[in-house]
Amino acid sequence: VARHFQRELDDLKAKLLHIGALVEEALDHALSALHRLDPVTARDVVEGDRRIDQFEVEVEEECLKLIALYQPVAGDLRFLTALLKINNDLERVGDHAKNIAERVVKLAEHARIEGAPSLNRIGTQARKMVRESLDALVRGDVELAKQVCAEDDIVDDLNREIFGYLTRRMQEEPSLVVPAVMLLGAAKDLERVADLATNVAEDVVYMVEGDNIRHNRDRARAARPATPPAS
Amino acid sequence: VARHFQRELDDLKAKLLHIGALVEEALDHALSALHRLDPVTARDVVEGDRRIDQFEVEVEEECLKLIALYQPVAGDLRFLTALLKINNDLERVGDHAKNIAERVVKLAEHARIEGAPSLNRIGTQARKMVRESLDALVRGDVELAKQVCAEDDIVDDLNREIFGYLTRRMQEEPSLVVPAVMLLGAAKDLERVADLATNVAEDVVYMVEGDNIRHNRDRARAARPATPPAS
Repeated sequence: VARHFQRELDDLKAKLLHIGALVEEALDHALSALHRLDPVTARDVVEGDRRIDQFEVEVEEECLKLIALYQPVAGDLRFLTALLKINNDLERVGDHAKNIAERVVKLAEHARIEGAPSLNRIGTQARKMVRESLDALVRGDVELAKQVCAEDDIVDDLNREIFGYLTRRMQEEPSLVVPAVMLLGAAKDLERVADLATNVAEDVVYMVEGDNIRHNRDRARAARPATPPAS
Repeated sequence: VARHFQRELDDLKAKLLHIGALVEEALDHALSALHRLDPVTARDVVEGDRRIDQFEVEVEEECLKLIALYQPVAGDLRFLTALLKINNDLERVGDHAKNIAERVVKLAEHARIEGAPSLNRIGTQARKMVRESLDALVRGDVELAKQVCAEDDIVDDLNREIFGYLTRRMQEEPSLVVPAVMLLGAAKDLERVADLATNVAEDVVYMVEGDNIRHNRDRARAARPATPPAS
């Protein structure tokens, strides 16, 4: 039974990593569509989100079935709990990729706003954090996972820069208001992607070390003076 | 054992409803702070989110423990699965209430934008849907749950109105750009709250009827011509 259970856990983890690969692909395509304002690629991303949703439902059902069937305790229960959360977080990253793609479809009808270099940087950074959080999951690499958590502030800073730049552009040129608001939305989506990558990384730490650090970050944030999100 | 298990399920549901009550309170206070641009109430909401997070972690742990301990099948497993999802969704509603409150703290430093009546309406509507989804959960009321799902379009329409109004105001008065962007963000948060209330309602249907309708909505949406979100 133990060996069978172990194989089931491995299969489930492989399935979750497959979702991870689909989500990374969706994010890549969404970022590329955003960069080139390409509505065709964007529509593919929107379409493809259904597959991610289906896989998420499957992984969740199997996770709960394994918990009921094998009554795991300690490490194995922690492993399955973490898989459940990561599954949910990856699906949400997919949702944000879809949101960005939907914005691109709309943005393609408006004036192009040049010179928001931080927007590319926030995309690259969020993408990197998703990649690293999945690598940390594959290898059970706690150090890498903790590094991802530390990178979250970079994204918050970039988002503030983008907010400052785009609101200034809107004030200068009223015709840019609508596309600038959409770009702000895309930046916000990417900030959320980075947050979710951080969640995944925290769950990797929990999986390996058994320490629930997820809400500690919120507590640390709450203890700081309030610095509201840029948008 | 069966009677003991039933009592544990009842206790867990009561705990989840307690989270629901905390989340409703947070949302009420966030909306009231937004209406009056009151940073003091807003800071209380930000502070209070930690309690919601703590309860969420507890409910999740107990849920998984019950699954491992009693190996429920069919209806009982479905009930616990639904509780897990609703728990997660309610915590996210709490996060959005916190986001709105953080925006209020920042908004209080800017010029007040009058005449966005749809913003109050979207708040009232999102609030109503949270209330109804929790009522549907308490009573296992599938009809009410389905009604909540049908109301989601109202919120999307209101959000489009708000988007049109606020982008017009920004074009007319550049000094309103920053506060208007923040109000757009608050409207977006309320749209997400309504989405999450819809998720809760879908899980109530699943709990009672065993039909997983959650991603059906996404599929129905994907089948329609792409109508990207306003912001």
